[in-house]
Formats: sequence, structure tokens, C-alpha cells
Amino acid sequence: MEEMKWTQLWLGYHKIYDGDSAWQIALDGFGGEQRVIANALEEFKKAIEALTGEKVLGGSETASNSKTLTVSKKDSIPAEGYKVSGTQEGITLEASDERGALYGVFSIIRQIACGKRANEVSEETSPSNPLRMMNHWDNMDGSIERGYSGESFFYVNEEIVIDDRTRDYARFMASVGINGIVINNVNVKGAASYLITDRYFDKVAELSDIFADYGISLYMSLNFASPIEIGGMDSCDPLDKDVIAWWESKIKEVYTKLPNLGGFLVKADSEGRPGPFTYGRTQADGANMLADVIKPYGGIIIWRCFVYNCTQDWRDRKTDRARAGYDYFKEQDGAYHDNVILQIKNGPMDFQIREPVSPLLGGLTKTNQMLEVQIAQEYTGHQIDLCYLIPLFKEVLDFHTYCAEGKDTVADVVSGRTMGNTLGGMAAVINTGNDINWTGNDLAAANLYGFGRLAYDTELSAEQIAKEWIAMTFRLPEKEADILCSMLLRSREIYEKYSSPLGIGWMVTPNGHYGPSVDGYEYSRWGTYHRADHLGIGVDRTDKGTGYCQQYYKENAEMYNDPATCPEELILFFHHLPYTYMLKTGKTLIQHIYDSHFEGEEEARGLAADWDSLESVIPAESFKRVKERFDLQLYNAREWRDQVNSYFYRKSGIADEKGRTIY
Amino acid sequence: MEEMKWTQLWLGYHKIYDGDSAWQIALDGFGGEQRVIANALEEFKKAIEALTGEKVLGGSETASNSKTLTVSKKDSIPAEGYKVSGTQEGITLEASDERGALYGVFSIIRQIACGKRANEVSEETSPSNPLRMMNHWDNMDGSIERGYSGESFFYVNEEIVIDDRTRDYARFMASVGINGIVINNVNVKGAASYLITDRYFDKVAELSDIFADYGISLYMSLNFASPIEIGGMDSCDPLDKDVIAWWESKIKEVYTKLPNLGGFLVKADSEGRPGPFTYGRTQADGANMLADVIKPYGGIIIWRCFVYNCTQDWRDRKTDRARAGYDYFKEQDGAYHDNVILQIKNGPMDFQIREPVSPLLGGLTKTNQMLEVQIAQEYTGHQIDLCYLIPLFKEVLDFHTYCAEGKDTVADVVSGRTMGNTLGGMAAVINTGNDINWTGNDLAAANLYGFGRLAYDTELSAEQIAKEWIAMTFRLPEKEADILCSMLLRSREIYEKYSSPLGIGWMVTPNGHYGPSVDGYEYSRWGTYHRADHLGIGVDRTDKGTGYCQQYYKENAEMYNDPATCPEELILFFHHLPYTYMLKTGKTLIQHIYDSHFEGEEEARGLAADWDSLESVIPAESFKRVKERFDLQLYNAREWRDQVNSYFYRKSGIADEKGRTIY
Repeated sequence: MEEMKWTQLWLGYHKIYDGDSAWQIALDGFGGEQRVIANALEEFKKAIEALTGEKVLGGSETASNSKTLTVSKKDSIPAEGYKVSGTQEGITLEASDERGALYGVFSIIRQIACGKRANEVSEETSPSNPLRMMNHWDNMDGSIERGYSGESFFYVNEEIVIDDRTRDYARFMASVGINGIVINNVNVKGAASYLITDRYFDKVAELSDIFADYGISLYMSLNFASPIEIGGMDSCDPLDKDVIAWWESKIKEVYTKLPNLGGFLVKADSEGRPGPFTYGRTQADGANMLADVIKPYGGIIIWRCFVYNCTQDWRDRKTDRARAGYDYFKEQDGAYHDNVILQIKNGPMDFQIREPVSPLLGGLTKTNQMLEVQIAQEYTGHQIDLCYLIPLFKEVLDFHTYCAEGKDTVADVVSGRTMGNTLGGMAAVINTGNDINWTGNDLAAANLYGFGRLAYDTELSAEQIAKEWIAMTFRLPEKEADILCSMLLRSREIYEKYSSPLGIGWMVTPNGHYGPSVDGYEYSRWGTYHRADHLGIGVDRTDKGTGYCQQYYKENAEMYNDPATCPEELILFFHHLPYTYMLKTGKTLIQHIYDSHFEGEEEARGLAADWDSLESVIPAESFKRVKERFDLQLYNAREWRDQVNSYFYRKSGIADEKGRTIY
Repeated sequence: MEEMKWTQLWLGYHKIYDGDSAWQIALDGFGGEQRVIANALEEFKKAIEALTGEKVLGGSETASNSKTLTVSKKDSIPAEGYKVSGTQEGITLEASDERGALYGVFSIIRQIACGKRANEVSEETSPSNPLRMMNHWDNMDGSIERGYSGESFFYVNEEIVIDDRTRDYARFMASVGINGIVINNVNVKGAASYLITDRYFDKVAELSDIFADYGISLYMSLNFASPIEIGGMDSCDPLDKDVIAWWESKIKEVYTKLPNLGGFLVKADSEGRPGPFTYGRTQADGANMLADVIKPYGGIIIWRCFVYNCTQDWRDRKTDRARAGYDYFKEQDGAYHDNVILQIKNGPMDFQIREPVSPLLGGLTKTNQMLEVQIAQEYTGHQIDLCYLIPLFKEVLDFHTYCAEGKDTVADVVSGRTMGNTLGGMAAVINTGNDINWTGNDLAAANLYGFGRLAYDTELSAEQIAKEWIAMTFRLPEKEADILCSMLLRSREIYEKYSSPLGIGWMVTPNGHYGPSVDGYEYSRWGTYHRADHLGIGVDRTDKGTGYCQQYYKENAEMYNDPATCPEELILFFHHLPYTYMLKTGKTLIQHIYDSHFEGEEEARGLAADWDSLESVIPAESFKRVKERFDLQLYNAREWRDQVNSYFYRKSGIADEKGRTIY
């Protein structure tokens, strides 16, 4: 038996039933020579044979009891959408474009893998979001910034690697509806600056081709200082005509070599990256210049809004990092050209386990917006601790911004429904690497799967997505599937309970971001403070504090501004409160800290025990890998519990009402 | 003018006076062909010509008004000692060995550089310590563990580099009496394990030869697991006869190639290093085995006592890292063979700005002991902050252990006076690198100079050493020399004031060890805790606490055990006290914390201002380098002041009596 070099994730195709038919393929309006169609049919064949044992016949083959998959081009189906319906005669799949047909095939596969018979297959849908993207923070030396699943499978020693794994990766992404992939870290340094040069064009083109086979556009992160770093110029001022000319020439060259390139992602003026501010220009000046240059080629510029002062003085209580995105970007709302998208992190800080929704989302009303989330678990357990993030993403999508009557959720905004724009969507910082299981923790693949599915259909529930992923990945008996589903659904709240309380965030080991360090970021330059003293804790972001609350529309501003109406899971994000503050539960704030940390650690043990109960139904290798992660998670949960409780007990002097051990 | 690649430190030889003589050399009992004698005379010539303009004549030259340096072998002078005396006819230098003659020459040079005329030269002395060693923590990839002065000048890319700088380095070391140098990091890994193989023998021999030219023995750090790592064996059990045979063969090979090798330094069973504990053997088993093997070649084994549990649970208040050295090594006192030396750090923890003296020093009464200090400023400002450490070393040397009537100081113990043994001395973790000025901060060279001088003569005062170093390095007018001397002498206390208070230590940024992080090591595995809560701070190491006090002889044990008699600069090392505890100054403990931190920061500004006042008399490059360091020091001092004060104010809720700004 050949040693497995990587798993097939949710496309492992376990036998579901023994069918008694054979399948024929009929194309109507699509041609088998179309690359995406061809791969869709290949995928159907591979899947159906594995799932049901039913053969897919070649062009000239016939069989007595055959069924037919009919793939029809139907222009009334929305872009990238599909309609599939099964009958006794087979399945018809209608789509208006190749991507829709591919996604339709994966819908059929998913439904069968989840237990339907072919004749029961039925779905009509189209994507919620035009853009559904993965952002790789892979560096060309093979490392991955905030990667917890091994090294990059794109890069080894500054060379691009293309092999069977590349194709499998593209298949996985397409199977959940991803249509854009940024292949390199937003922090573009060293060799990555040369991705837009001859040094890498051939390999990038090859990669782009593989992506295109599965309906995926390749994007790159761009170094805003390219005119200096690779062009030998002495400026990258976006209004300098020589700089613009350099970019025109460069982009022309790039699109000659990479005609399918989707565009560029840019992190400028952030955390030491160069940008337009260096030249006294606005973010819009920078983004629009690139957008104008790329427009003739149909490309887009995705401009990150993660701009803030990262050399803050912790003594300064007026500056508020949470305000920065809105402060920098709101005033230029409407100034961005129409092939620019602003990519906005879900919260105003940085992927904490609990943050309010960024006020920029919907706060901008005349600018294309994309929601950025992180499935790499930078602050949420490094894919060691179980943390199914889809519930968090759902909360963000469902958040009412009050930006428009009846279509004011974040999902409305980024989908384009609010403004009627066509560029928007969702992007995730991906959690993959070259580990055998792709995501370090086998269970972290639920976030990889889930993000794609949710970006395609924001109406899906976190539970439904979890069930699909479990069925496709493990094919468990109902009871065990329910246990695993419950584990996933409980996990985010458990992580939150044993880590930093009530939305305050950041009580994390500096640099690494795994494990507790309550004061780790308290006296730092990063704008990340809890302001705990012997009496209380929290950041006053009300109208009497930093005024961050007032960046929201009135309804939310008022809700957040008042501790009585502020959602309590975020209360320390918005308010500095005494430890004796009474929460709606009837607990004091300090008692809540103690209780939630004891509970969180106990519930983490519950997760581990649940996993143990699945030993007989999970493949041994997978079981063992995850069990090892749970061992580490329990250690981590205990450290969080004891360090946070000890810190606050030592600081407040207030004893735990239940007299539990605090050190 | 040739660009200077490195400075000449205190051997820069500024013109002192214009002499009117010429010098002849006369040897009596020594031969000019003896390598050390030849170099001593070369050094005399170089120095005297630069300092006075007086020529040193070649063998056949004569002059009318000549003086003579007479170097005589006189067996009554103690080993490595010398007697120098000047008259109108010249200078006579008597010594019983080559090293003594070399040191005598450097004594002459020093006295003239410090202002004496040749006829006024006068000194009779011999070394306090048999061994005066530098320990390099240089790695073979060129990095230096805890190095703050650039990269290694011994190693580049796993190759040994020998050039003119190597010789200058040896000259500098000899000029202050260093007679042994360990050339590689005590954490022996990777290529360094192969220093005792053919891969490096030739280059090590070459380096050893240069050292020998200046009376310096070369030592290496040894990987205790060598039989496994380079020998291909499956054990390094020191009682295994195959292991012993491997070592016998290996050491024979080593001494064939490196006949002048002094011996080996070994860090075993410490911080992840392998050692005898792995095999259930004692530290003595390990050290003695190697000592027996090396004995036929006259080599010695220097065995570090830095053994402790580095995976401690912070919740555990019984285990005390401070106890570990004594607990591990005391019970085998007397079991170590006579060519073993135990190398003991000055304090029980790890080179903090203030620690009590290790109770092992003098606690051992039947074992060779060497005092280890660190002039690399790992915890004392990274050679950015000014911290002249000689006063600290003096305190250690002068400490009465009560181990023996009338000869109980640490200086007595390590010199051999207490026990009448001949192997002992002092070792420093060196602060050099390939920076142009060798020590990062030009002023940090005072520690390099000072350690050597102090190790040679432990009776010298910190002030005297500082004055010598200033005179030799800068040759300043008296007023400016006094300012600089005062800066050096104040600096250690200033650093202590703005960093961690009253001996508690460790409030430092984890890993890097520069700058404050009050809780940085509080919840760690390193055994380094301050145990601060809202009421008080400190570690109870009394008979009611960890019992560490009781590791000292009765007089010290009782002194430390009682807060009323415990030296207050160490009071939090030994006692957990309330913030309201009244110190002898009439200040509460918390007020002392506030006051000392405000004062320390202010006094650091005073140091910087003093430096500014020296601009006209210090060479421009040197002035600029140091000024840049002071800018960083002031930033650091301010961070320390504000973070420490804020931490304790937030925790205690007790206001500063003087109402100064605390954040």
C-alpha cells in the first residue's frame, strides 16, 4: 500500500450505498472540452463510483440500466449558481456558466455523501457573495505567517512547487465554492516581491492554470514599494508620474504572462509595510492608482483596511486602535474607484475570540467591501485547541449595522445587496499547510470547509455546515455524528470561556499568541490594553472614553454606549467596570471571570472525553492526531484558567465565592 | 587612512610624554626565543614607543642615553606574578615564569599609560586566582548566545576564523591577566560537537597556538552526549565501560592534536542539556569519569553547577529554584576528583542585577570551586544600558560565607586560600563580539577590562579599576576622567533602581531579557516568581517558606531569615512582605518602589547628561556610539519606571505619596 502523503479531507468518498446502475453523461450547451466542465465530470465520475459503486460510462459505452447526468447550460440560472434535481432517470444539472456546473456537481456529490440517493438530489442556489476568497500568508521560504499546519505547499526554498497536491488543493477549494485565491502573504518581502517578474512568471502561470481548471482565479499580494524594491526607483509615490508609468509597464507585462490573473491584494501603511502615507497621499490615492492601471485588464485591487498606529504608547488612553480603521477609511468613502474593494477584518482589532463587528462594515456606504476573517487560529488556539469558528462568522454576517432599511446586515453589505454593487464578498486567512491532514488538527478542516460553504451561502447555519462536513469526512453513525457536531458547536464558547473574558481580548502570550499572558500586551506598543487595576477592568470606549462607540450607527452606538444595554459578552470591550459590577446573570464581574474560567476548563475536558468516546468510529490515525491535540488543549485550558483567575484574584483581592483553588 | 576594522580598546597607547631616551632589552634567565617572552617584548616596544616616543633598540643597536628593561627569571616570585621597579637606569622586571614576565610588561605599560614615568614604575604582585577565564557563548554559526556586540569573531558559517583580530583579542586578554579561554558556548550543539574531531583540529590548534603566544590556555565546552552524537553509541552513561573507553580514545586523540589544551567546560543536566542524571548517575559520576580520562594529559574538567528544574509549575510554592544548586551539589562535596572544578554562578538564580551570593560558594568545603560571573549584560541592559559590574563582583568576592575562621570570603574560597587547593578562580561569560568596538557599548569594555584585572587581583577596588581603564582608553583631563569614573560607579545602582526592586529580580521581558515585563516570568516554568498580589510581594525563602535561607552558614542564615536583619536590597528575595512594610529608611515598601523607580530614571538621565558633557574630550565616533546607547537607555529606563510603578499602583491601589504620574 502506498503511503498516504496527504488526506482527501471531505472528498474522501466513503461508500454510501451499492447502486445498481451505470451512468451516462449528457452535455447540453456545455462542451466536454471546456476545462472546468471536463474536471467537473471527472470529479463526478470519481465520486459516484466511490460513493455508490456505480460506473460512469465512457462516450461509446452503454448499459441496460443506465441513468444520465445531464449538464445543461441555462442562462436564467444566476452566475455561478446551479439547479440540480434527481429522478429515477438520473440527475439534471443546470447552470449558466462553468463554475455553476462545477459547483452543481459538488452539490450532487455532497448530497449523496450526506445520505441522499441520486434520485433524491435536489438544490437550486447561487452564491451569496461574488468573491469567495482564500488568503494565503505563505512566504516564499516555505514558512507560513501564523501557520499551524506545517510549511507551505506552494513554496519551498523560494521556488514554486506544483504537484498532485496542488491539484487536490484546487479541487477542495472548488468543492466549497472558492473562486479566488491569493497565493502569497500580504506582508510581501524578499523573493515574494519578484512574483511579478520573469523569475516566477512561468510557475505562477502554471499554478494559475491549475486553479483555472477548477474555476478559481489566482491573485497575488503586491508590494506597494515594488517600484523601489524591484524597479530601482527612489519613490513609490502613487501620484508620481514616473511611478505610475512604471506600474503601467509592469502590469502590462504581468497580464501578458498571466492573462487570467484576478488582481492584487495590498497591505499598505500597516505594521511597517510601505504605503501612500509615506508620501502624504491617501489610501484612496494608492488604491486608485493601482486600480486604474489594472482596469484595462479586468483586474481588481483589494486594499486591506488594517491600518493603525502600531507604535502606540500604552500610557496614552486617548488613542484607540479600535477606532483606526474607521478613522482612516470612512472619510474617503466614495473616493475609491469601482474596481477597488476594501477588505475589512470582522472586528476592529485582530481576530480575537470575541470582538464587536467593525464599524467600517456598513459604515462605508459608497465603497466596495469585503469581509476578512481568519480560519488560521492565530488567537483562537493554533489549530491545537478545538475552535469551530463558523458560529463567530455567522454572528458577524447577521449583525445589523443599520446602514440601510431592511438590508443592513454585514451579509447584505458585502454581498452587494445593500448598495447594488457587484464587487464584494468574503475572504479568509487560510489555515492550511503541508501537514498530512492539511490543517494540523483534523477537526480544524471544519473551518476550511465551513468558510467556503458559508461564503457561498450565508444563509447556511453553523450546524448544517458542521453536519455536512462530518458526514463527508467521517461518515459516522448518527449518535457519534451528533456528538462530534455538538463538540464543534460548543467549542468556540468553551475557548472563549477559558481565555480572555467578556470581549476584552489580548491576554495572550506576545508574539506567539498561544496561551495566556494577562499582561502580555498591556504595556506594549500595539494598542491592546485591558486597563485592569485593583478595582476594575475594561476599556472605556463610550462617548466619555475613546468615543469608539460613536463610530456605529445610532442604534448600535447607543446600545454599546450604555453598560445596561451593551451585550455582556462584549461589555469589557466597551466599558471599564468595577469587579463588583453586577451582570444580568446576578453574578459580579469578578465572579463571572472565575466561574467562566473554571467552566471553560471543565468543558474542554468534556470535549476531550467526547472525542475519546468516538475512538471506535474514527480512523485510527485521525483519532490519534486529534487526541494528541486535546492533550495539549487541556494543558492550555488549565494554564488559561489558573493564570487568569490568579491574576485577577491577586489584583482584586476578591475571593471566589465557591472557594475553588486559585493560586 | 586605512579604515579601522576594530578598536584597540585599552591598548590604544596615547602619547603620554615625550621621552628622551632609547631602550635596550636585557634578558636574564629567559630567552628571546620563548614565545611569550618574545611577545611581551614586542608589546613593550609597541607600547613604549607610542606612549613616550622612546625607541626600543634592536639587539645590535646602541644609543648614548639609553635605559634598559631587564627581564629576569627569579624563582622566588610566585607563579604568574611579577615585580617591576623603575630607576633612572631603566626598569627591572622579575618573574618566575613567562606569564609573569608578560603580565609584568603589561603592568609597566599600564603604569606609564596611567601617568607614571618609567623611573616611577613599581609593583610587586601575583595573581589572587590560579584560573582567570573567559567563557565564550559563541556558536559555530556565528551567533552568540546572549551576545550584544555583533557576531562571533571566532566562527563564521561553522568555520573557525583566524586573523589579526584573533591576535589582538589574545593581547587584550593577556594584558589583564586572563590565562584561560573557553572558545565555544556551554550549550554544545550541532557543529560545536565536532570541535573534538578532525573536522576542526587544525584550526583549533592554530587558535591554541595564538593563545599560547600570550600565555593563554585554550579550553572547549564539551557535549556530554558526544559518545552518542559523534561516537554513534547509544549511551553516554558515565559508568558504562564502553562509554569510558570511547572517551579514553577520544581524549587521547584530542591531546595528540591539541597538546596545550587546558581542559573542558561541561554544562550537564541543565536546561535540556544531557547529563549523568539521564542514567541515574550523580553529577560527580559524570565529572569524575571525564576527569580521570583527561588526567594523564594534565587537563581539568570544569563542571557547571547551573542545574535546576526548568519545567517548574508556577503554582508550586514549595520548589525553589534558588535551592537547586546547593541541593544537587552539596551532598557530594568531597566526592569530586582533584582535577574537577565546580563552576558556580555568583548568585543562586541567574545573573540578576541583585542576588544574594550562592550558598554553594564556601558551602562546599572539600571541592575545587570557581566563581562564574557574566559580563555579557544579559539581564543588566544588553550593553545598551550602562552598567559597570565590578562593584557587584566585588560584593560577591568580599562576602563572608562563615565557612572558615578568618578566610571565609568568596575571594578566599575560589582563590584556594580557604582550603589550600590549587585549582580555582574566576570565570566570566564574556561580552565581546565582532562589533568595531568589541563590546557594543564602548563603555562596556570597562567590564571586560575590569573582570580580568579583578580576577588577577581581587583586592583592587572598583574605582581603581575604573580609573585605570579610563586612563588607558581615553586619557582624559582629570575633571572629565572623574566624571566618567563617577558615571561607571553610579551605573549599577541606577540600573537596579529603575528595574526590579529589592532583589526580587526577573521582571524582565521573557526570552530577550531586555526591558520590563513585570509578570513576564511570573506564570512561567522557569522558577522565577515575585508572587505579587494586592497586599504584598516577595518570595518567602525563610524557614517558614522554602527554607533556602538555611542553606547558608548559621550567621548568614539567621541574618537572611529575619526581615529585620536581612539586607534591605535583598529583602524581597527572602521575604514576602506587605506593601505597607516599613523599611529602615522610614519608607513603606510600596513608596520605596515608587521612589527608587522615579530616582533611577532621573539618574539615568544624569548619566546621559554627564556623557554629553564629555563630548569635547571623547573621540567623535566613540562619543556618538555611546550617545546612541544612552538614547536607548533613557527610553528603557522610562519604560521600566512607568511599567513597574503602574503595575504596583494598579495592583495595590496605594497612591504615590508625592503624587507623581503613575499610569
